[in-house]
Amino acid sequence: MVTLHDFLPSGNGFKCRLMLRFLNRPFRLRLYDILKGETRTAEFLKTRNSNGRIPVLELEDGRCLPESGAILHYLAAGTPFLPEDPWDRAQVLRWMFFEQYNLEPTIAVRRFWLTEQEGGLTDLQEAQLPAKLEGGHAALKVLEGGLTGRDWLVGGGPTIADIALYGYTHVAPEGGYDLSAYPGIRAWISRLQQIPGYVPITQRDF
Amino acid sequence: MVTLHDFLPSGNGFKCRLMLRFLNRPFRLRLYDILKGETRTAEFLKTRNSNGRIPVLELEDGRCLPESGAILHYLAAGTPFLPEDPWDRAQVLRWMFFEQYNLEPTIAVRRFWLTEQEGGLTDLQEAQLPAKLEGGHAALKVLEGGLTGRDWLVGGGPTIADIALYGYTHVAPEGGYDLSAYPGIRAWISRLQQIPGYVPITQRDF
Repeated sequence: MVTLHDFLPSGNGFKCRLMLRFLNRPFRLRLYDILKGETRTAEFLKTRNSNGRIPVLELEDGRCLPESGAILHYLAAGTPFLPEDPWDRAQVLRWMFFEQYNLEPTIAVRRFWLTEQEGGLTDLQEAQLPAKLEGGHAALKVLEGGLTGRDWLVGGGPTIADIALYGYTHVAPEGGYDLSAYPGIRAWISRLQQIPGYVPITQRDF
Repeated sequence: MVTLHDFLPSGNGFKCRLMLRFLNRPFRLRLYDILKGETRTAEFLKTRNSNGRIPVLELEDGRCLPESGAILHYLAAGTPFLPEDPWDRAQVLRWMFFEQYNLEPTIAVRRFWLTEQEGGLTDLQEAQLPAKLEGGHAALKVLEGGLTGRDWLVGGGPTIADIALYGYTHVAPEGGYDLSAYPGIRAWISRLQQIPGYVPITQRDF
């Protein structure tokens, strides 16, 4: 059985949990408190991820894979969640890289600062809030465009592109993003929650 | 023949140029001045990339693919630059997502602010310079660790992981990053420049 090294509020970790659930694949969940530096210990850096972050997928033989996008791609290979067609595959990665570059650093970071970080915001964080609000909405507009007239981002069914984009989009209101202007996104969120195996981001036990 | 929509100083665009050169695949280069908003026009947003960014790979039939990571993966499929082994493939993506999340937003952004942006820095940009310097060095340390005792990041030869990480790392000094503390990175930079077809980032004609 694989082990997922994770932090429960993390949207990046949640993407991997959803993938494992959708594939009906049993897994162990090992949780860390990233606020206490538990992923920055010498042991974690040496054995789990030299970049000091969750999620990390640990295989049965102990090999470890960091980066949610790489984990999703690895787990989905050979399943309908990763299309075989080269152009569809390219589109899947297009959306996943877009998410990590444009959506996560705005929406996830505002959400973390406003809901998880202890001790209030630094002046520099406070000063970045408006630009991150604007950048997040710009990303949401691109996502809304990608969902207009479509049920899923790529092809006719859900793929890891949908899972990757869903991770932080569905909790964007926690970062101060009003989703009412994005009907395509709201319908897609409901649709994804109907996939068998769906669990909420806060669920600890499987 | 494919067309690469690009901006010459862009490391993300350069990665795609290198890939096409290493594969000995002819291509057209169509350059835009991103400083003049040429990738934010209604036409570009509609026909090239709804996210308003280069690089974009345009196929012979007009289909367009944004995101350097997706372009590299698409072009490299079926070549030695993208390994067949699932675990090696996962490692390749691990490095590519790491680059877009940790290395590009620090090193590339500082380089852009300090060398390309016209009219000086805003106060908010100025305030972010120290954290971006620190974050970039943290990313370089992870990369140095990945190259210790190895010639290439994944497997025995160069892959798109090396191309993706090289794009901004080799010009990191332009962003104020001293590479003298990273002997593994410096040797790997020299190694990559020996691959047949290599061209400098500034080269306009092919």
